[in-house]
Amino acid sequence: MIGCRCPVCLSPDPRDRRTRASLYVDDGVFPFLIDTATDLRSQCLREGITDVGAVLYTHHHADHILGLDDLRRFCELRQERLPIYGPAMTLEILARMFPYAFDAKAQAAAYVRLLPYPVENAFPLGKLTVTPLPVPHGQVTTFGYLLERDGRKLLAYLSDCQAVPEEILSAIRSVEVLIIDGLRDEPHPTHLTTQQAVKVARRADARQTYLTHLTHHKSHRDREADLPAGIAVAFDGLKIALD
Amino acid sequence: MIGCRCPVCLSPDPRDRRTRASLYVDDGVFPFLIDTATDLRSQCLREGITDVGAVLYTHHHADHILGLDDLRRFCELRQERLPIYGPAMTLEILARMFPYAFDAKAQAAAYVRLLPYPVENAFPLGKLTVTPLPVPHGQVTTFGYLLERDGRKLLAYLSDCQAVPEEILSAIRSVEVLIIDGLRDEPHPTHLTTQQAVKVARRADARQTYLTHLTHHKSHRDREADLPAGIAVAFDGLKIALD
Repeated sequence: MIGCRCPVCLSPDPRDRRTRASLYVDDGVFPFLIDTATDLRSQCLREGITDVGAVLYTHHHADHILGLDDLRRFCELRQERLPIYGPAMTLEILARMFPYAFDAKAQAAAYVRLLPYPVENAFPLGKLTVTPLPVPHGQVTTFGYLLERDGRKLLAYLSDCQAVPEEILSAIRSVEVLIIDGLRDEPHPTHLTTQQAVKVARRADARQTYLTHLTHHKSHRDREADLPAGIAVAFDGLKIALD
Repeated sequence: MIGCRCPVCLSPDPRDRRTRASLYVDDGVFPFLIDTATDLRSQCLREGITDVGAVLYTHHHADHILGLDDLRRFCELRQERLPIYGPAMTLEILARMFPYAFDAKAQAAAYVRLLPYPVENAFPLGKLTVTPLPVPHGQVTTFGYLLERDGRKLLAYLSDCQAVPEEILSAIRSVEVLIIDGLRDEPHPTHLTTQQAVKVARRADARQTYLTHLTHHKSHRDREADLPAGIAVAFDGLKIALD
């Protein structure tokens, strides 16, 4: 954190240097992002990401959207408008913030050009089926997403939530990989604590769980030491094989 | 650049790894930023910047503003709303994009809280006098800024311009340090080329000039090799002593 000299902010462990939460999904057919974190450009350069075909947005908070303009490069490489999916309110806010990105008349291939698709129900994306998972997060409802293929529940992503309602628990039950908000040990009005996230993971019977959207209150190593088997701590650059 | 494998993008020279253009001015009395580049958080962490008391905005293009939300940390450390200065249109666009940052009723100290001051003429900032320098940049007029103290023209910053009008040349004449848009060698509709920037620097009789807002078309080393004495190439982390 800027201007902080706590042991985690000064830690030499690269896993304690965190940029904003985001996920890149590449199934070899249709690569896409969940959110465009403010750090999107440096994240793409760091991970060698050279293609993005779409974005799923969870919600409109600054840390999840301010990399949007850097999608321009993927529009340029693909020579097309990128489809973006998310809650209707999120897409409306993005259109208010970045009107030039949604201007159908704008033809400059070097600029970001987006096609908004508000979603509420499951929809296909490449070979996957994507199901929005509405969850409470302070004053807003954010979307988590469940990714399925051939009847397998491959991945559930719930980056910003203060609770996981029963119907969402049912939807993600027995998911192979769960990535879930586990902000810190201390309670927070809009995010799950570590222990709340662990409880959700157990109730959902997730095969493997990763905690994300983490603060500097505890080091990566100390966090992992406190977690049960099957639950780990995500870090920048973490790669998860789904096959 | 994302998805580029040119020699500059693959260069091992750290000066060839460029984040978005921005400037931090610290006169020991009142530290401030010119623009909040998308990379603001990582730039502050990299340079150990722990205090910002104000921001001067040049214009509203994405690369110059999308770090705005990261000012929250400086609001929190100072326990105050940060004043921001710039063209009226820029501040209006920022208020449309980030309404929560300008909401006088919002009291949450952990969020970004700004006080907008549209400027046209010279104004005091700490011990400095700041003069806006309107310059053309495609469809918009951007502000450069001249910083003066005790009658000395310390610094002129002109990060985005396609030309420098005569009255601006007069205003910055004999400036000690000029930082100026020198995008690339090839012409561009909204930015100065290297040669155009060199010509402005000579006509302004700047003591020392740095080119900024640079593309990946040429390495830092090759750029510098082509420049006359008194004109250098800026790079991430460059520090300039004004005293």
